[in-house]
Amino acid sequence: MDFEEKTINRKEIFKGHIFTVAVDDVELPNGLGQSKRELIFHNGGVGVLAITPEDKIILVKQYRKAIEATSIEIPAGKLEVGEAGGEAAAALRELEEETGYTSPKLTLLHDFYSAIGFCNERLRLYMADNLVKVENPRPQDEDEVIELMEVTLAEALDLIASGEICDAKTIMAIQHLQIIRK
Amino acid sequence: MDFEEKTINRKEIFKGHIFTVAVDDVELPNGLGQSKRELIFHNGGVGVLAITPEDKIILVKQYRKAIEATSIEIPAGKLEVGEAGGEAAAALRELEEETGYTSPKLTLLHDFYSAIGFCNERLRLYMADNLVKVENPRPQDEDEVIELMEVTLAEALDLIASGEICDAKTIMAIQHLQIIRK
Repeated sequence: MDFEEKTINRKEIFKGHIFTVAVDDVELPNGLGQSKRELIFHNGGVGVLAITPEDKIILVKQYRKAIEATSIEIPAGKLEVGEAGGEAAAALRELEEETGYTSPKLTLLHDFYSAIGFCNERLRLYMADNLVKVENPRPQDEDEVIELMEVTLAEALDLIASGEICDAKTIMAIQHLQIIRK
Repeated sequence: MDFEEKTINRKEIFKGHIFTVAVDDVELPNGLGQSKRELIFHNGGVGVLAITPEDKIILVKQYRKAIEATSIEIPAGKLEVGEAGGEAAAALRELEEETGYTSPKLTLLHDFYSAIGFCNERLRLYMADNLVKVENPRPQDEDEVIELMEVTLAEALDLIASGEICDAKTIMAIQHLQIIRK
């Protein structure tokens, strides 16, 4: 079976700092005719399941404008274009900026698309369970207001049940910890 | 601590069939000044972890234009505006259209945002483990070319490891099955 949708025409709608928006006219496979695809292109990002020496998960509370509410998430951030060292370096940068910790070794847990139906944002989810305090950590971004939390796995599961944790990468990270701890 | 980012001005950039794009000027909390937020508004969707009487997971292979590749995912779809019965009805509709099965009972597993940093797409992930074949199922969407697969949990984990399963909702669903089967 042929699956490919060939692009007949691409119209770029918006080029922002975070994402680009386009609408493609596509030729469907198997003689099904044409259709339109609304698309978001994003540079991708990283998230870190960070476990302290006291066996707590480090979480970050912050405001998320898209949902007009605060959300509790694992440390995460966008990839910067051409960032030296790639995704693992970006993960260590975000970890240090947001939590003041670093790690000699990251383990890649999952590499996935967050909203594959219309968006190419690719996230790498890492685990860091050998954290080291940084003496003078890099400061966090100027337009970020965050609050740190350290919780047990049981507390994290409660935060999912209450809806205070409501984002995909954080739920995936906590489920991973559930699986490896069983 | 105050987290809220108040909207000073919203500029709508694009209003499509799948999502709306806006750029907000926001007032940061705690006197941090102003910033811009690029935002995607989406009506939300549903996904279904569907388990056959033979204890197989039903998966759907399809082309995803945003990543220019085929992807293997749980049955899923967008909420239609004002759909009668809400999310559970939408989940049953997608399940029937894509697989020819229905279920007398869905269990809500997770309710989450797929890309919370810039997008308000909210997904409800259900489990259906009591599937019933529909005699004359509703046809699938005309512009969808899909191929059905039925796999064991071990095979699903192999598809994650190989990268053929690479979308967040499907990985979350399979993790959930791992957790309850342990």
